[in-house]
Amino acid sequence: MTEPGSSTTTEPQRGEAEALRRKLTAVDPVKGAALLRSAPIENAGAALRDLDSNHQARLLEQLGSQKRTALLTMMPPDERARMLSETDSAATWLDGLPADQREDTRRLVQHPPESVGRMMTPRFLELSATESVGDALDRVRCCETDVEAVYRMPVEDNGHFVGMVSLRELLRERDDAPVASVADRDVEPLSPTDDQEVAARRILTTEELTLPVVHGGAVIGVVTIDDAMEILQLEEAEDAALSSGASPLRRPYLAASLFRLVRSRVTWLVAAAAAGVLTVRVLAYFESELEEVVALALFIPLLLGAGGNIGAQATTTVVRAMAVDDLCVRDLPRVVWREIRVGVMLGGLLAVLAAGPITLVYEARLAIVVCLTLVSVCIIGTAAGSALPLAVGRLGGDPAVVSAPFITTFVDATGLLVYFLYARTVFEVSV
Amino acid sequence: MTEPGSSTTTEPQRGEAEALRRKLTAVDPVKGAALLRSAPIENAGAALRDLDSNHQARLLEQLGSQKRTALLTMMPPDERARMLSETDSAATWLDGLPADQREDTRRLVQHPPESVGRMMTPRFLELSATESVGDALDRVRCCETDVEAVYRMPVEDNGHFVGMVSLRELLRERDDAPVASVADRDVEPLSPTDDQEVAARRILTTEELTLPVVHGGAVIGVVTIDDAMEILQLEEAEDAALSSGASPLRRPYLAASLFRLVRSRVTWLVAAAAAGVLTVRVLAYFESELEEVVALALFIPLLLGAGGNIGAQATTTVVRAMAVDDLCVRDLPRVVWREIRVGVMLGGLLAVLAAGPITLVYEARLAIVVCLTLVSVCIIGTAAGSALPLAVGRLGGDPAVVSAPFITTFVDATGLLVYFLYARTVFEVSV
Repeated sequence: MTEPGSSTTTEPQRGEAEALRRKLTAVDPVKGAALLRSAPIENAGAALRDLDSNHQARLLEQLGSQKRTALLTMMPPDERARMLSETDSAATWLDGLPADQREDTRRLVQHPPESVGRMMTPRFLELSATESVGDALDRVRCCETDVEAVYRMPVEDNGHFVGMVSLRELLRERDDAPVASVADRDVEPLSPTDDQEVAARRILTTEELTLPVVHGGAVIGVVTIDDAMEILQLEEAEDAALSSGASPLRRPYLAASLFRLVRSRVTWLVAAAAAGVLTVRVLAYFESELEEVVALALFIPLLLGAGGNIGAQATTTVVRAMAVDDLCVRDLPRVVWREIRVGVMLGGLLAVLAAGPITLVYEARLAIVVCLTLVSVCIIGTAAGSALPLAVGRLGGDPAVVSAPFITTFVDATGLLVYFLYARTVFEVSV
Repeated sequence: MTEPGSSTTTEPQRGEAEALRRKLTAVDPVKGAALLRSAPIENAGAALRDLDSNHQARLLEQLGSQKRTALLTMMPPDERARMLSETDSAATWLDGLPADQREDTRRLVQHPPESVGRMMTPRFLELSATESVGDALDRVRCCETDVEAVYRMPVEDNGHFVGMVSLRELLRERDDAPVASVADRDVEPLSPTDDQEVAARRILTTEELTLPVVHGGAVIGVVTIDDAMEILQLEEAEDAALSSGASPLRRPYLAASLFRLVRSRVTWLVAAAAAGVLTVRVLAYFESELEEVVALALFIPLLLGAGGNIGAQATTTVVRAMAVDDLCVRDLPRVVWREIRVGVMLGGLLAVLAAGPITLVYEARLAIVVCLTLVSVCIIGTAAGSALPLAVGRLGGDPAVVSAPFITTFVDATGLLVYFLYARTVFEVSV
């Protein structure tokens, strides 16, 4: 919400800056840095602004200290602080900055990562409850253009936060009225230690342009709606990656190296494959059943596929609902009970569809085993898929780490066990 | 960005409205409507504002016409228009509204669903390039509180859009200067037929508070940053659901009935299961190989699991990159070539890990078959997982419909084919 051109002396050419930004998203950081070097500094600064902080850090690492410092100076303090937490050279990079910017940044960096203290902007205008509306408007007129959030400003009284005031309300009020008369006192401030995603969602829900960050009674920063949007986008990107068992790339797809793509996916893949050894062990244990009724093997991919799919659906639904705060950990029993019933219904439907054809093509006993297993894996899938994210949340973890590969592997192993136990029972009994 | 309390006579109690909203997210629409009925109308109106339009429509359907009309009157026009497209009774509901609101809504509803024309707000203040800054400020002071977006306003000259102006810039300018002198002419307007997600992302990228919607040269509405945030959240919810092969619930998890949960998941699940019959057919075709080497069956879940997981990772990565505009359809060859190499590396790694143990426990021939298949399914997974979303995008569809179940089932069937072809070759050759 800074005005265009804030903190730069020359206006960036918006079209050219946008073209440069697009190019940066399609090349690796080394090539990207070359592009930044040859572009006019104001365009380079504007293009850099929309990138992930990790990507920004990798680009700046490739630049000479003079160019880097120039670009650092152009960044808003909150963005600079986020970016500096992505590099080991933060101290060196800070040294080149003007004293006030260095100080601003140091204050932000002292707060924990992903906290409101890191994302807030420390450059805001605070009004006094006792000053007149006319004086307040004059201060809005005269403040520097890089001061953000003048459309909704915090109001203090004796250094203590008392409420927020909208520029629009100020304009509508008589000039000699005190600011206190238009202050909105019904605003719950943020704390610098609040989670940044929670803060962003509060801005989304309340439709506030700005929320104040209060520490020890005093306002130490503000969080603006455009920062909130960016945070939510980052969190969405993270959740989307985690849902498939990958870690977030932290940069545009084409700007990520092959090695980075591999690294982002390898952990879960190898972990899931290692856990998949369990499926080999289960099958090996039932090898005699397999030898006796080879037809049992035919349905393994179908059964495990259905269980894995339904498990992934349940997990995705619950993780998403938790992310947007529709569900919390104490809903666990209610959610699992709902999901079990959903599993019974969906599994039952699949079983009804499968029963006839299997009986006709193979035999009734096999149909019984497959159908019982279908219902069972669907229940296992929905129950585990919904319970695990909530359980991880209860343990204080990020529910999004419960990814589809995790659930799929779990359903694979337990589903096979159930399948062959049914088979053993049905085929032995009916012999 | 309406000021709190706009278009209501009484201020809602924010705390109570929020508590009501939370209750609405946890009960079905019938119970929710009962809660709305017993709450003070201004709290009910405020609580309703943050819900999905589909959920809003289901709640309003349960109310009497008087209460419903009162709540409809309190909704911002864009939100009302979105909600009305979710009910069949739109015409009846509109009839009860005051003439100007009815007209506003009718104008919005004429635009296609999910277009900018539907999401824009038609109640905005437009300045004239030739009026003085002082007059413009007076108009800001006097306009009704339900007029949105006064912090960044469109400027027209002879009915034609010429640029945008910030309230802040107006305040800093001399009162007798023409508005034209502070107008920012470097703003690309939206068209009413633009896709709403594209518009929302442009607001995110440009950090504009407001973007103008221009039709035939004239401004017919504005899109505000808070509307953009809401749209992006809706789209994210949709993509998250689709990624697991479910359709979006369009309401909070606990407010959705069991039947709705089942319905949102059943289509893909049954489709994937039906496609899964292919895996049964492939296995049946190779039944003699299976009977001869029963150990082949043991590795089926492991192999298909790895292929499915890596495919889901690739799909999720590419769908996400397309959603945030980092990738477009013409990147297809480049992306698929990258993903094939990623598949080779990840599959190769898994093969190296698997080769030793399988040789030791079983035999070298089986190890060769499993390892070759591992590399193959990883390549199939990454190639299909990345190519399909891009191909769907090229055909004009939503890439997000290429869900994990789809890729998993595809990899299952092709993976089995490959596995047994390798097996046939290796075991026959080596006999």
